[in-house]
Amino acid sequence: MTKHRAILAILLLSGGAAAHAQMAPREVPAHTVPVPDTVSPDSQKLIAAPYNPVWTVAPTTAEAWHQLVDPMAAEAAKALPALREKLRVGSEPVTIDGVKAFMITPIDLPPANRNRLLVHVHGGAYVLFPGESGTREAIALAGIGRFRVLSIDYRMPPDFPYPAAMDDAMTVWRAALKMAKPSQLGIFGTSTGGGMTLAMVLRAKQEGMKLPGAIAPGTPWSDMTKTGDSYYSNAMLDNVLVAYEGFLDASAKVYANGHDLKDPQLSPIYGDLHGFPPTILTSGTRDLFLSNTVRVHRKLRQAGVEAVLQVYEGMSHAAYNRDPFAPENREVFEEIARFFDKHLAK
Amino acid sequence: MTKHRAILAILLLSGGAAAHAQMAPREVPAHTVPVPDTVSPDSQKLIAAPYNPVWTVAPTTAEAWHQLVDPMAAEAAKALPALREKLRVGSEPVTIDGVKAFMITPIDLPPANRNRLLVHVHGGAYVLFPGESGTREAIALAGIGRFRVLSIDYRMPPDFPYPAAMDDAMTVWRAALKMAKPSQLGIFGTSTGGGMTLAMVLRAKQEGMKLPGAIAPGTPWSDMTKTGDSYYSNAMLDNVLVAYEGFLDASAKVYANGHDLKDPQLSPIYGDLHGFPPTILTSGTRDLFLSNTVRVHRKLRQAGVEAVLQVYEGMSHAAYNRDPFAPENREVFEEIARFFDKHLAK
Repeated sequence: MTKHRAILAILLLSGGAAAHAQMAPREVPAHTVPVPDTVSPDSQKLIAAPYNPVWTVAPTTAEAWHQLVDPMAAEAAKALPALREKLRVGSEPVTIDGVKAFMITPIDLPPANRNRLLVHVHGGAYVLFPGESGTREAIALAGIGRFRVLSIDYRMPPDFPYPAAMDDAMTVWRAALKMAKPSQLGIFGTSTGGGMTLAMVLRAKQEGMKLPGAIAPGTPWSDMTKTGDSYYSNAMLDNVLVAYEGFLDASAKVYANGHDLKDPQLSPIYGDLHGFPPTILTSGTRDLFLSNTVRVHRKLRQAGVEAVLQVYEGMSHAAYNRDPFAPENREVFEEIARFFDKHLAK
Repeated sequence: MTKHRAILAILLLSGGAAAHAQMAPREVPAHTVPVPDTVSPDSQKLIAAPYNPVWTVAPTTAEAWHQLVDPMAAEAAKALPALREKLRVGSEPVTIDGVKAFMITPIDLPPANRNRLLVHVHGGAYVLFPGESGTREAIALAGIGRFRVLSIDYRMPPDFPYPAAMDDAMTVWRAALKMAKPSQLGIFGTSTGGGMTLAMVLRAKQEGMKLPGAIAPGTPWSDMTKTGDSYYSNAMLDNVLVAYEGFLDASAKVYANGHDLKDPQLSPIYGDLHGFPPTILTSGTRDLFLSNTVRVHRKLRQAGVEAVLQVYEGMSHAAYNRDPFAPENREVFEEIARFFDKHLAK
């Protein structure tokens, strides 16, 4: 609680960025935001949940990171067998040119999806959800959209900072290009996974590799610095990320390991998005990364890319991954599945 | 200032809706939101502007309404000749089966747009911008998109409450159907004009009239009751509408004149949106009507309608109409123009 208050104090005091001292900031008074009655009871429960306690945790040693990450991964993994059974998908650990991954396959794979493959990059601020625990979202889209999904178990800090995660992702992408035609391949992921999805396309462009037929970065961590309006406007409203200060800030630093956070490989909003494949972006009105999402959408549109945006009522950051069976969350996956179905070759 | 404080007190105290007493609301502490450095200097100026002072004004007599509305209309009209000159459009007052309107025509009308016509429904909470003062947005889209625009000067309260405005709009729509093929016609408008755009399509469906080829409801007032998350979450952040209590609430009541605010003709979110034409929706991350916009987007998508959403960084309600030359605002009109160009027959 003391730590929570200290971080809150920093948050409140650091509001007025020095660069804009000449422009008066908006002083928003304390206010009450009720649980909206415009969403389903299942989504109301997610919205009414207290702040994710992780947001105040900012480990400073490798040991402290593991003490946070390992029990969370074990807990998350426990829920997966039931999820796979309910969504009728199987999961198989595989190794792709030395990189660990999981192949998630629907029991009833529709003929239209037999030659298609989605590459999945999990979220968790570059530090959370190692091993099978990162496959939750892959299971949801494989089950709801009935796609085959190859979920990358990329290396992470504190043991492996940038660029290990991106190196692993590109190894899998190179291998995926041998498993299907580029037009039959998609890439998707949420939060860090959304940022990495964008960074993978940037790096594929740079390295002259083929691009996927479509991508689905969900509320992507497109700017790892505290840049973008909703880092401020949705702070303490979003109950998943809550605020930049604390866990997010610490995760950015341990991942970057001294590297420039504004390098497009870390913050893809600063990359050249021309030539990107059709893109579907997902966010929520309470999302701390709403600006991270709409800034990418605008930049893609400016680059002439077919890019669609879905913003869900009252939804905090990536809350659709908390319960894929809430009607609005199922809709998130259905929209993404429809988008891939529309844009990927058969 | 006293009135401002009184309304603020009501706003802060009324946060926790009784219906959700069982679900803990989010208590958002006071916080500072700087002017973002992710938008152009022109947009920064709009974002840094103080609250629109009108938000606290809640007239209770017809005379008081006119004292508010008439000088604002005169002031707004003054800026129009220069705007028309800069955007190279002409404006001609016309009467369409007894309804006043303005035909806005680009000096250089591209051949592709010769047979196309956009019907415009202006905004202003159903009370503001009578006469020529309501044509500002029509001039912007006519100039930037080089479309012919027929802007409806519909009757308004306090003299003419609901359904006068909708009756006038439908009279013009009936006439427009004789001026071009339905597939060559679009309807657009912002805020109240966005709500009326949706209500016009609902009423056209009910009356068996032909529908337009595409529509562009900008941040539509789709729910005239205080329902939707951003009425709470973006209150005191949006510097155009600021909050529901005060002007908006008073406008809703004087327009409805005792009619049910949840009637789909007043709050089109409650209507059946099946069969709607392709729709482009526009909002901003600070918009008090962000939920009014995304709720319509979701409902259209659920009805199988092709509907695209554009959400602009840091933008308050309808701020694109404040300065159509700010780069982001010009982009709003360019996106809408491109959408009409894509979907309307030539």
